Amino acid sequence: MLEPERILRLEDDRVVFLDQRRLPLEEVEVECRTAAEVADAIRTMVVRGAPAIGVAAAYGYALAVAHGEPPAEAERVLRESRPTAVNLAWALDEMHDDPSAEHARRLHADEVERCRRMAAHTAELLTPGTRALTHCNAGGLATGGYGSAVGALLTAWERGLLEHVWVDETRPLLQGARLTAWELETAEIPHAVIADSAAASLMARGDVDCVITGADRIAANGDTANKIGTYSLAVLARHHAIPLYVVAPTSTVDLATADGGAIPIEERDPAEVTTRFAAHNPAFDVTPADLITAIVTEQGVHRAPYRSSLVAAGAHA
Amino acid sequence: MLEPERILRLEDDRVVFLDQRRLPLEEVEVECRTAAEVADAIRTMVVRGAPAIGVAAAYGYALAVAHGEPPAEAERVLRESRPTAVNLAWALDEMHDDPSAEHARRLHADEVERCRRMAAHTAELLTPGTRALTHCNAGGLATGGYGSAVGALLTAWERGLLEHVWVDETRPLLQGARLTAWELETAEIPHAVIADSAAASLMARGDVDCVITGADRIAANGDTANKIGTYSLAVLARHHAIPLYVVAPTSTVDLATADGGAIPIEERDPAEVTTRFAAHNPAFDVTPADLITAIVTEQGVHRAPYRSSLVAAGAHA
Repeated sequence: MLEPERILRLEDDRVVFLDQRRLPLEEVEVECRTAAEVADAIRTMVVRGAPAIGVAAAYGYALAVAHGEPPAEAERVLRESRPTAVNLAWALDEMHDDPSAEHARRLHADEVERCRRMAAHTAELLTPGTRALTHCNAGGLATGGYGSAVGALLTAWERGLLEHVWVDETRPLLQGARLTAWELETAEIPHAVIADSAAASLMARGDVDCVITGADRIAANGDTANKIGTYSLAVLARHHAIPLYVVAPTSTVDLATADGGAIPIEERDPAEVTTRFAAHNPAFDVTPADLITAIVTEQGVHRAPYRSSLVAAGAHA
Repeated sequence: MLEPERILRLEDDRVVFLDQRRLPLEEVEVECRTAAEVADAIRTMVVRGAPAIGVAAAYGYALAVAHGEPPAEAERVLRESRPTAVNLAWALDEMHDDPSAEHARRLHADEVERCRRMAAHTAELLTPGTRALTHCNAGGLATGGYGSAVGALLTAWERGLLEHVWVDETRPLLQGARLTAWELETAEIPHAVIADSAAASLMARGDVDCVITGADRIAANGDTANKIGTYSLAVLARHHAIPLYVVAPTSTVDLATADGGAIPIEERDPAEVTTRFAAHNPAFDVTPADLITAIVTEQGVHRAPYRSSLVAAGAHA
C-alpha cells in the first residue's frame, strides 16, 4: 500500500503532493505554499479523487490560516477549485472551527481508516473467484491512502476472493491505465487494462462478475456522480445482470443534493480529448440510483431506497 | 468528398495508399509492389475499413497476378492479413476468375456506388434536426470513397436533415478523432469528438437521436461485428430507446456465418491500449441483431428477421 503521507502531507510551511499527472512514469512531488497554490494543484489534477481533494483542501486551509492568509479568502479559493466532488466543501466545513494542522492530519487519517472499513464491508459482498471491473482510479491516490474501490479490491485479494481485475483505461486522462494499474501492479493483483469501450463485450462473454467504482458525490436519493463513463458501465451492467457497487465514504454523500439532476458536472478543456477538432469533454456523469446495486460507506452496505439509510449513516447535508 | 483514387489506387507496378495511420497530421502515401506488401499495409492499418480492405486485396491480387506472382500464394497472404472483415474474402472470391486491373477498379467503383445508394436509403430513415452519434470511421477512408455511415451523414446533411454529429474518438487507435472528424470537417458538418465513455450521458440528456455505424461482418441472422465499442453503444441505445442503424454494403454480409458467435474477433497488440501494463485489446465486438433497429445495404433497409431479407438482397455465402 502507498503510504498516505507519500500521496499528500502537510509540512510546516507547505503542502506536498505526489504529482498524479506524471505517474507512473515519474514520481515527483509538487510543493504548495499558499491556499491559491493548493487550489491550483487541485484544479490541474496534481491531486485528484474526491476524498483526496477534500484532504488537500483541509491541508491548504490549515496552511493558509497558520501563515496569516485571510481565512475567508483561503476557504473561497479552495472551495471553488473543482465543482463536482462534495468532499471539498465537506472538508472545509469540518475545518472551519478548528483550522489546526493536527485537525487536518486527523481528517486525513480518518479518511484512510474509512477506506479500510468500506473495504471490509465490500468484501462481504464478493464471492471467491470474483473478476471485478473498475473505472478511473478510486485507489489510495484518490483517497489519500488505501482507496475506496481499489481498497475493496486489496481486501478482497487478501481474503482470497479476487481472481482478476479489468481496468478501464478511463479516457481522456487515463487514470485507470496510469494510476489504478500502477496500484494493482504494486499490490501484485492480476489485472488487464482495457479500452473503456471494451467493457461491454467482456460482460457479454461472462468475464465480469461485478463492477466496483468510487464516487465524487452521492445525492440523497443515491444518484451518484463519478468519472465520465460510470453511467455507461451502470447501464451495461444492468443489461448483463451484473451488480454495480459504489464504494465511497460518508464524506462523499451530500444529503443537501436531492438527486443527480442537482449535481454540477464539470466541463473540462476539450483539448484533453483530442487534437485539432471540436470536442465535448464532461468530466463526470450521473448514475441513477436504480442502476446501483449497493452503495458501500464506512458505515456499511446501503441498498435502495438509499435516503433513509444514508441519513442513518450520519451523512452530512 | 475525398476522391476514391486518393484513398487507394492501382498503378502499373504498384498499389498506392493514403497512409491512414498518419492522418490528419500528415497526408503521405505508401506504395506496395507485391501481394505481401499489400497484406502488410492491411495488417498494419495503412488502409482499414472493411470495404476498403476488400478493394485493397483486389488491387493487391491484380498486381501480383500481372507481375507473375503465384496466384494461390498471393491470394492466401492477402486473405490472412486480417480475420474479421469478410470483405477481404469476398473481394478475392470476386477476383478469382478475372484478376485483371480493370476488374479490380470496377470493384472499387462499385463499392463507392453502393455507398451512395446506402446513404440515400439511410437518409429516408432520418427526420430534420437529427443529432447522430457515430463510432470509429465508416467514412470514405473506410470504403474507398464516400463512406457507409459517414456517407449517410453526408447525404443527410445535403438534404437538410442533419443538425450535429457526435464522434466517438474510438480508442485505442482514435479512428473517430483522427479520421471521421477530419472527413466531417472537410464536409463542413457540425460535429464534436467525445470520449467513448461519454456517449451514455449524452443519450441520457436527450442529445442523441440515432446511432449510425458501419460494419466489418454481418452474419446471416443480422448479428454484426464492428469496431470494439459498437456493442456497448447498441446496449446504451436500446436502454435510451434510440435507434441504431448499421450501414454496410452487401459485400459485408456473410450468409455462411450463421450468427455472431461464429465471427472471428481479432485480438490486436496490447501495446495499442497502453503503456507498460498488461492489457487486453480486442479490435471488434459483436452486436446481436435484436439490438439493431435496421441494417441498410445498397439494396435498401432491412429489418428483423434479417436472414430472409439479406438473402433476397443477394448477399453472398
